[in-house]
Parts: sequence; C-alpha cells; structure tokens
Amino acid sequence: MKTIQKHKITFLPANRVVEVEAGSSLIQAARWAGIHINASCGGAGVCGKCRVLLEEGSVEGGSSEKLSDEDYKSGYRQACITEISSDVSIRVPESSGTKGGVLETDVPQRHRARMHEFDIASLKKEGIFSPPVEKVSIELTPPGAHDNRADIGRLIQGLSDQYGMHRMVTGLSVLRKIRRALREKDFLVTVTVGRPVNEKLKSHMLNIQSGKWTNRNFGLAFDIGTTTVYGQLINLNTGEVVAGTGDYNAQISYGEDVISRIIYAEKPKGLEMMHNLVVGVINTLIKKLLKSSRPPISESDLSNKGYCEIPITWDEINSITIAANTTMTHLFLELEPDNIRRAPYVPVSTFFPPFRASDLGLELPSHAVALMYPAISSYVGGDIVAGVMGSGMYRTELVTLYIDVGTNAEIVIGNKDWLVCAACSAGPAFEGGGITHGMRAALGAIEDFSMEPGTLEPMNLTVGNKPPMGICGSGLLIIIATLFERGLINQDGKFNQVDNPRVRHGKSGFEYVLAWEEDAGVDHDIIINEVDIDNFIRAKAAIFAGIKTLVEEVGLQITDLEQIIMAGAFGSYIDLDCAMTVGLLPEVDPEKVLYVGNGSLLGARMSELSNHIRKDVVNVVRKMTSFELSEVSSFKDQYVASMFLPHTDMSIFPGVGERLARASLQEEAYNE
Amino acid sequence: MKTIQKHKITFLPANRVVEVEAGSSLIQAARWAGIHINASCGGAGVCGKCRVLLEEGSVEGGSSEKLSDEDYKSGYRQACITEISSDVSIRVPESSGTKGGVLETDVPQRHRARMHEFDIASLKKEGIFSPPVEKVSIELTPPGAHDNRADIGRLIQGLSDQYGMHRMVTGLSVLRKIRRALREKDFLVTVTVGRPVNEKLKSHMLNIQSGKWTNRNFGLAFDIGTTTVYGQLINLNTGEVVAGTGDYNAQISYGEDVISRIIYAEKPKGLEMMHNLVVGVINTLIKKLLKSSRPPISESDLSNKGYCEIPITWDEINSITIAANTTMTHLFLELEPDNIRRAPYVPVSTFFPPFRASDLGLELPSHAVALMYPAISSYVGGDIVAGVMGSGMYRTELVTLYIDVGTNAEIVIGNKDWLVCAACSAGPAFEGGGITHGMRAALGAIEDFSMEPGTLEPMNLTVGNKPPMGICGSGLLIIIATLFERGLINQDGKFNQVDNPRVRHGKSGFEYVLAWEEDAGVDHDIIINEVDIDNFIRAKAAIFAGIKTLVEEVGLQITDLEQIIMAGAFGSYIDLDCAMTVGLLPEVDPEKVLYVGNGSLLGARMSELSNHIRKDVVNVVRKMTSFELSEVSSFKDQYVASMFLPHTDMSIFPGVGERLARASLQEEAYNE
Repeated sequence: MKTIQKHKITFLPANRVVEVEAGSSLIQAARWAGIHINASCGGAGVCGKCRVLLEEGSVEGGSSEKLSDEDYKSGYRQACITEISSDVSIRVPESSGTKGGVLETDVPQRHRARMHEFDIASLKKEGIFSPPVEKVSIELTPPGAHDNRADIGRLIQGLSDQYGMHRMVTGLSVLRKIRRALREKDFLVTVTVGRPVNEKLKSHMLNIQSGKWTNRNFGLAFDIGTTTVYGQLINLNTGEVVAGTGDYNAQISYGEDVISRIIYAEKPKGLEMMHNLVVGVINTLIKKLLKSSRPPISESDLSNKGYCEIPITWDEINSITIAANTTMTHLFLELEPDNIRRAPYVPVSTFFPPFRASDLGLELPSHAVALMYPAISSYVGGDIVAGVMGSGMYRTELVTLYIDVGTNAEIVIGNKDWLVCAACSAGPAFEGGGITHGMRAALGAIEDFSMEPGTLEPMNLTVGNKPPMGICGSGLLIIIATLFERGLINQDGKFNQVDNPRVRHGKSGFEYVLAWEEDAGVDHDIIINEVDIDNFIRAKAAIFAGIKTLVEEVGLQITDLEQIIMAGAFGSYIDLDCAMTVGLLPEVDPEKVLYVGNGSLLGARMSELSNHIRKDVVNVVRKMTSFELSEVSSFKDQYVASMFLPHTDMSIFPGVGERLARASLQEEAYNE
Repeated sequence: MKTIQKHKITFLPANRVVEVEAGSSLIQAARWAGIHINASCGGAGVCGKCRVLLEEGSVEGGSSEKLSDEDYKSGYRQACITEISSDVSIRVPESSGTKGGVLETDVPQRHRARMHEFDIASLKKEGIFSPPVEKVSIELTPPGAHDNRADIGRLIQGLSDQYGMHRMVTGLSVLRKIRRALREKDFLVTVTVGRPVNEKLKSHMLNIQSGKWTNRNFGLAFDIGTTTVYGQLINLNTGEVVAGTGDYNAQISYGEDVISRIIYAEKPKGLEMMHNLVVGVINTLIKKLLKSSRPPISESDLSNKGYCEIPITWDEINSITIAANTTMTHLFLELEPDNIRRAPYVPVSTFFPPFRASDLGLELPSHAVALMYPAISSYVGGDIVAGVMGSGMYRTELVTLYIDVGTNAEIVIGNKDWLVCAACSAGPAFEGGGITHGMRAALGAIEDFSMEPGTLEPMNLTVGNKPPMGICGSGLLIIIATLFERGLINQDGKFNQVDNPRVRHGKSGFEYVLAWEEDAGVDHDIIINEVDIDNFIRAKAAIFAGIKTLVEEVGLQITDLEQIIMAGAFGSYIDLDCAMTVGLLPEVDPEKVLYVGNGSLLGARMSELSNHIRKDVVNVVRKMTSFELSEVSSFKDQYVASMFLPHTDMSIFPGVGERLARASLQEEAYNE
C-alpha cells in the first residue's frame, strides 16, 4: 500500500488549519478549509484575483503575469497555481477573500464519503477466501505391475486421499495432457481445480501441469460499463490486484446509452457486432494487463526461486468474473436484448451458468472459466448486484442505501435480512447533459465552487486547473446548493431578486454568471440559469422519490436509513453536505456514508476470490425484490413532493434547516 | 420386423427333414441336415460331384456343364448351385454321398448360438427406457406487466411446474436462441434436455426450438473397431434403428492391430492423424446414415401431418454413444495411448465424462452430447463393457461366460452379483492368420465342412459359393473338430496313419488335402497340416485356459458355467459342437449359448436409450475385477493342460467323449 504524504496548511487571519495531500493546490486547500478566495478563472492563473501571502514554509509555483517580481519576492503567490509541498502558513489579503476570506463564521468540516477499502484480510479471517479456481499440487505413486490404474484414476484417487477432494470431473484438455504431465516430473503435478458454488455438485479438473506451480494462479475481474470497461488482473493466491486498466467501451460509437445500443443490436448483424466490439476491448485490456504485470514477489517466493521473476502469461489465467448492467451483459454474451427496451422489459436471462471463456470469444486458455454476475431485472443489472456484494451491504445490520448514479440511478435499500431495488430514470443532468453549459468531468469543467457572501464573487475550481469551460455534475450540485444556501434561489429553484451584475436576466430567465468570458476557456460567459436548475431538480427528485418510495414500500421511513453506500464515478466527487442540502440524498450522519468507487468491479473481484460470496450472490439475488417505480402508485406523488429544495417536507431534512440558518447569520455578519 | 420365409427340405433315402431359409443352397441345407454330399469345389458348380435328384417341389438353378440336358430334365441338379424357393424332396444318389449320404446313423441337431434379440419392449416394460437426451414441449404464459421474469427463468419455472424438472442448467446456445424461440409460436417451445446419470446432478437444457418437435429426437450408436467402424441412427422416442452402416477404420493403412496403431501415434503428429482418420470415418458414416434414413412413419405420425415426411437432418441428432476398445477410444479422443503397449499397461483413462460432440471433431450440432463407454483396463475395453451391458449378462442369475473372439479374445465371467474379466492373447489363428492356407472370411474361404467316413471325401462350403481359396476361422474350427472326431488326428493334433490319398506327408509334417488344385480357386492344393493344427490348438488353449483360470480364481469350477454369450463376427459362424469338441468353449447346454452379434454396438445402442443402463455401467465397471492372466501363477499350467483336444482332463468334456464314441460306431457301420 502506498501512503500519501499530507501537509498542514494554516490560513490567516482566520487561523483555520487543514491537512491536505502533497501536490494539492493552495486554492483546493482553501476550499476544504472553508476559506473563500476569489477565483473566477478556475485556477488557471489568468484572472490574478487569488493572490495570497506565504508567511511560513515553502511552496512550488505560484508566479504569473499578474504578479510582479517584487510581489513574488515579498511572498505573494497565485493560490490557484501553487502546489503544496510542505507545511505552510498562508495569509489571505482582504482583496482576495473579502474580510480575510473566511466564508463562514463557524465552518463545519466538509464531507465526502469515506473510501470503502477492499479487505482481503477480513475475507481470510472469516475463512471465506476461497477462489472458485484453485491450484493443488500432488505427488503420486508411479504405477507398477500390481497397480496399473489409469492415469486419471490415479490422480483422482490421490486428490481424494491427500486433499479430501471428491466428486472430481475432468475434461478433454486434462485427459489429453495427463500422460505426459504425470511423467515429466516423476508424478509430481499441479492441478487447476474449478469449484462449484454448490458443494454437492462436482469440481472440475480444469488443467494439469507437471511439477509444482501452485503459486501461479491468476484471475481477472471486469466491469463492462456502458461507457467504459475496466479490468483487473488478480493474484488468486493472495487476492492482490497485480494490474488494473480501463478503456472506453468501443460500442460507444453506436450510441451513448443502452437504448441506442439495443436498437443497433436489433439490426442485421448488429448484435454480433456489439458483441465483437466489447469482446475486442476486453481482449485488448487483457493483453495490456498481462504486459504491465509482474507477479508479486513475496518473501516466500524469493526463498523459492524459479517462479517469482517469470511474467504472467495468458495461459496462467484460470478464471474471469464479469459484472455489467443487464444490457451490457446481453451484448457481451450475444443474447438478444430486444425486450429490455420494451414493456414489460423482459431480459433473456438474469442468471448465468459458468461459461468457457473461449466460447465467448475471450482470448484466454480453453480451460479458463468465465463467471457472469447475475442481474435482478432489465434495469437493475449485475453491476448493481456486484456493488451490493462488494460493498458488503448484504451483510450489514444497518438499514443501508446503496446508490450508483449515472444516467440511470440504481438504488438498493436493505440490510442482511432484506433487500429491495429499483432503477430511477434520472436523466443526464449529473453527467452535464441538458444543462446550458454542462459538460463531462473533463479538463476545464467546474467541479468545485464557493461564493463570497455579499459580493457573490465565485471561487471556481476546475478539472486540471484550466480556465473554466463548463460545469460537470459535481460542480452543478455544489453551485446549486451554494446558490440555495446563500438565498440566491428559493425552494422552487427560482432566483430571488438581487442587485448584482452576476445575477441577470438571460435567454432562459434569470441566471448566475460563474465566469466572465475573459476569465473563461470559451468565448462566452459561463452561466447557470433557472432551466438548468429545474433540470437538476427533476433529476434529483427522481432519485430521491425513488429512494423514499422504496423505503416506504417496505414500511419504513426515510429517516430510518442508517447508512449510504455510493458507487460510480459521480459518487467520489460528491459533496455530501451539498447533496443533502438540495435533497438528492437523504440525511444521514456523513460518517455513515461510504464510497466504493467502481462497485461493479469491486464485486467482480470479490467473487473472483470467494466461492462463499458467489454462493451468497445467489441468495442475495433471490432475496432482492425489484420494483418497477412507474408501477408503484405512490411514486408520482413522491416525485412531485421532491421537486423542491430540498423537499416539500422539511422535517426530513433537519440539517438543511440548520445550514440555511447559519448561512443567513453569516450573511448578516458580512453585511455589518 | 421382416420375417424370413423358411422351407422344409426332405433328404431321401435317409428321410432326414430340415427347415432352412429361402435362398439357401441345397448343399447348405444338406450340411445342416447332417447329410454329406461330396463337394470339393466349395459349391461353385465346378467339380460336378454333388448331383442330387429333385423328387418333389421346385428349386432354382442347379444346372452346370457337368450336367447333361437329359439329366437336368430327369430332375438332377448340382446341389451346390441350387437355391431353395419352396418345400422340396431331394434324393441323394450313392455316387454323391456314399451310402445315401447319411453322415451319421443318428445325427443330432447341429448347434449355433441363438441370436440374442435387442429388446426395446422389455426396456419399456421395466420402465428403463429413458434416453439420456429427451425432448419436452411446453406452453408458457407470456410475460405481462406484473410478470416480467427473464425468458430463461420463465422456462425453467415452467419445466419445474409442468414436468417436475428441477435443477436445470442451460448453456450459451439456448440462451442465444430463447428469445426468438419463445415468441415464434406464442410461447410454445420444445426443449432438448440432457439428463445426468446421477439424478442429484443437474440436467442440461441443450437446445430449444419454437413449436412442438417432441417426435423428432434422434441419436447415434457407434462401435469403433480396430478393423471396422459401425454406426446406427436411432429414433430416441421409439428405440428403433432408423439406419445402420459401417466401413473400414481408415487407420488400418497404418497397421492392422492396436500395437502398430499405438506405435504410429507415438510419432510426431501421429496421434492427431490417427484421431482425424477415425473421426473422418465417423463423419462420413453419419452423413451416410442421414442420407439413407427417413423417419419412421407410424400411424400416430400420419394423423399428425407435418413432421413425418421430413428427412432427418444433422441438427436433429442430440447424442452419440460410442463403444470401442481401449486403444481405439484413446485414438478417437486423441489421448496418448503410449502406455497401453508398455508394462504395466496404464491407459490415460477408463472413465470418460460427457463430451461436446463438436469438441471431438464430430460434425454434429454444437449441443450434441458424446458419451463414451468406460473401459476396465488397457486390454478389456469399452467394447467389452458395452457387450456385457447389451447382452444383459450383468442382470442374469446364471453364471455366464461372455466372450468376444478376435486377435485378442476378451472374456468376462459372472452374473448380476460379480464379474471378472481378462484378455487372452489368442493370436490371429481365428482370423486365418498363421495357418498355411488361412484367410479372412472373404469370397472362396472354406467356412463349413464335412467329411465322408471311409472315403474321407470332403464337403467344402465356401463364402459366396466360390471355388475354395483357403480356410477361414469358422472353417478351421469345423475341419479340425471333424478330423479329430473321425479319428484322423489324435488329442495332440497329430495325424494317425491312414491309407488315403487325402492324407499325405507334406512340407510341414502330415497334412489333409481339402481340395485338389483342379477344384480350387488357387493354383495349388488346399491343405491343413500339423503346424496349422498346432497353431490352432495354441490359440484355443490360450482362450480356454483364460476361461478356466478366471473361473477358478473366483472359486468355481469350469462345469459351473451355465450360459455362454458370444460376440464378434467369429461368434456368428461358430459351430458350437465343434467348438466344444476341440475344447475352445467349455461344455454347456447349446440352448444356453447366445450370440449377440456386434456386442459393442448393441451396448452403445442400449446406453443411447437408457440412462438406467448408463448408471448400471458405472456399477458394472466398478464391480468388474480385471485379471492380468500373465500375473496369475496358475495360468501357465492351465495353458499347458489345454494344449490337447479337447483337454487333458476329459472329465470336463463328457459330451466330447460321447461324440467320439458315436463317430467311431458310424465308422464301423460304414465299413461293414
């Protein structure tokens, strides 16, 4: 595990201290400390507004055309282009952050979800570290005149005697190799065994090698997303990820969403093409993983020379576990997805038997097994099931909300005893779609934001510290939450009248100007207007209404939720306080919010490493009740009630009330 | 079932009556009636010695150059070229068969093994007609808003509800077809289900078709012999053989016996070539079977138009069961056979999992299952196991000897409670090898024989009624038995001194002349000499010693055997009395001798039709104890004791003593 170095930053005159990772910019540190520094240009060193004074310690960078050599020598820096490399004290002059830049009188900690660490150790501790494919080495007595059993019979008996492995079944490839394998190293062989989920069923002898190769057992975990495909190469003996990589799903040129992919697949040869495209991506990623991987060298390996320095080859991969949404699963397996997009949304299958990887077109050895995550329905796929498994949600006592936000937000609610799930059509707002200046989280996207009370001057933080070009999902959330907290917009998302050049009447009603053209990376002002805010409210309302409907369908209240687990790219950047302020997420203790990253990939890896988890998956899927929200009569009412910031029923958002009150106090203090 | 017409033949003056099949020759009828007619030329109408007088009824043919028109008009016929087409009375003149042709004063019935009929009816009666692959049609409720289960889930539930079929597992091909299949005929589909032998394991959904196709379920049974490959196309619903065919095993150009095949397979690419050759033969035979087959049209088919007139296509074949000796099994599966020919004779495997037929190179649909008969050891193969299953030996109370004679004679002894087996190296004598004028049972081979007492004139019956060219296995047995019964040779197989031109001193000791050059189809006399007889005695001694050793190893006596089942081409022609006279087979009631024909093919067909039998096979193989005769200390003594006609211990051949006494009486009568 690599440890990331952290540094302590003290902001003066507020005397606010924050710890940030080395390499962070000063402006990011300020944002986390609750210090506002005017910065229209997104941290690109263009507007020159964010100058601060270095009082103690040293930093890197921070000079720009807007800063004279003299000022630089005096210790002034452009906060947005200054990198932190040691503990420092920084003074924020009044010009940069009015009134010393202190945004709030009593700034509470900003919350992001804690990262949920994948825990191999606890798998091992619980005795459920049991990869579906294992390697066993065995030394057999050679045949003699009074013991001329067949080679396979001798091996099966040996595995039974020495390892208590019964009910073994073998395939053609082992039969074809065994004679030579047994005799090459004096009847010392290594057998690759595929274990069934149900112990009553037979184990499969997948491969045989002469000599001892038990320390070479590798598998793959893959997540096939609609947009991207991620893969990991895993050491099945240790659980470690040897290499990881990802790439766009090549199907993307035939449509960005699942519906357009399905439509394409319905054309002649379309399904075959969709299948080949994604299989091609996976095959390329497998090659890349193998290329970038070297087997881990442990101490025991080193004392056991001969294997440790050998790179992993494709024929050492014995299994692959794949999680994907239902449409991606169908296209990957070349199953007709036609009815996924047509009511009543019937997929071909939600459960899948183990496949031969090579039958699916994967360039893996003929004995390699491909295990596909089961799905719940057409719109709650194997990716979500994988997330539920990977996050451990299905084992907790806490009433938990699992949420993966993309174009669709898939939600699962429950705990170890019960699980319900649904998909909400959130629309593309969280991916920047349908927003006047919305964009994906690419270079120049405003991803973080604060606003000076009174002056309404923005502090835009952009991806890659580039001049702002638009707003991505996480930025949108923070901007709208801030506008709402600061009282610029009301519960309906409409602007209150304010006398400030940054709030004006534009083409689509009132709008707030985030960046003037001269500070932007595009040739126009960057704004957010009432239509954008309305689109955002619709999206968050769909999700929140889905959550509340599900919770109430099982007879609970929204306030009974005790834990939230977030997955997906959006979840990692989400500001929890903002998410609760706008009523996207229900209010829970921010300490009880976890982020699992790519939940689908995590779950795939867990299954690659534990047959117990594979067994649990079956139970989880059987246990999980899927709701078609459009079929639940109360959903529409819930949706309408959620079309406010944060909600018509403020009693379920007590924390928001507190935050609004605090902001109002601060506003007053500022105006004194 | 076609019934064969039979006719009654009365031979005068002996007034001996025999029933023979229409189309038999008169000379064959005489042989079966125990009437001797001199016929040196093998029934080719050349020697002219076999003239007989037609007294009543009519026959076909029977004229030759040796017969004047006048004689023909008077009713004379050449017996060897006369075909029986009605009931007739025939007078044998003294010139043809001296003293009226009556060979024995009180001729007992000649015995051949009764044909064992394959009995589908009793399979059905016992409730064990249960093909491993069956077809089931099912009508499902279409999905709706409140029932949008996946297609596969719906089908599996339907099979469970309507047929009590649980634990189904499906493969890629069904997953890929099901959406369309369900919707093409309003959710009426036919599913091909592969049943496991062990009911606790899962059934496999192999294929799905839209509509009702339950009456189209076909399978294949194959026997891969070292020399020939036989196949049958079977209607799995009725058990009927729709078509049958056979051809040489194309491997034969690389060696006639298993050892030379193994040696070839050890060469680079040799195994692959052996595999491809036999797979090629099977693929050709499958095409031939399909071409020659039309599905059976039963009354119910006719009232159910639409399917019955459709020829069987390759994709309607759902399974193939193959039986073969251990070497042929290895070569077919492309398993290295190297150790089969080297002590301690270890095969790669004796048990085989179900394979995908297409993985073995068979041109069958991808869902078709290939089931391979298990073997006992390197020299007691799946062909023998199949014979034990097909003959029903493993279910009988009677202590039974199962014997398949070829270059190797494989023997199995036992009943429903126990089974022992061994392979005896009999050498090629029974196939005509190592015999001066030995030959395979091809055109011109002497296959039956009698000899007139006193004159020692032969009656040679040849394959195809051609002038004699040599002696095949069945002929050799009858000739030696006759020479022994008539006292021409003694118990050691040496000629007694006789004053007759047909017994003379040749290149290799004394010999008997079966045909003079002028009557033969070759340019020399055809003889049998003491070396030939010695070779034959060695071969029969190896077999009999094997049988006796096995019997005594289980604590029984040879006289405890109650039933004999013979398999293989040789068994169909064998004269049982002769076989016991020479001591090849132990003495049992000839009524208790059955012939099963190609036992291997029979067993393959049985397994194709009954999972119960497949299950029994596993138990039979586990139960069967294999003996390596060379490792049993008593075998050598048994062998030496068997090197006499019939055996040193005459007490175990009481019937032979009687036959010798009777022959001696007849000789005396003749000489009076």
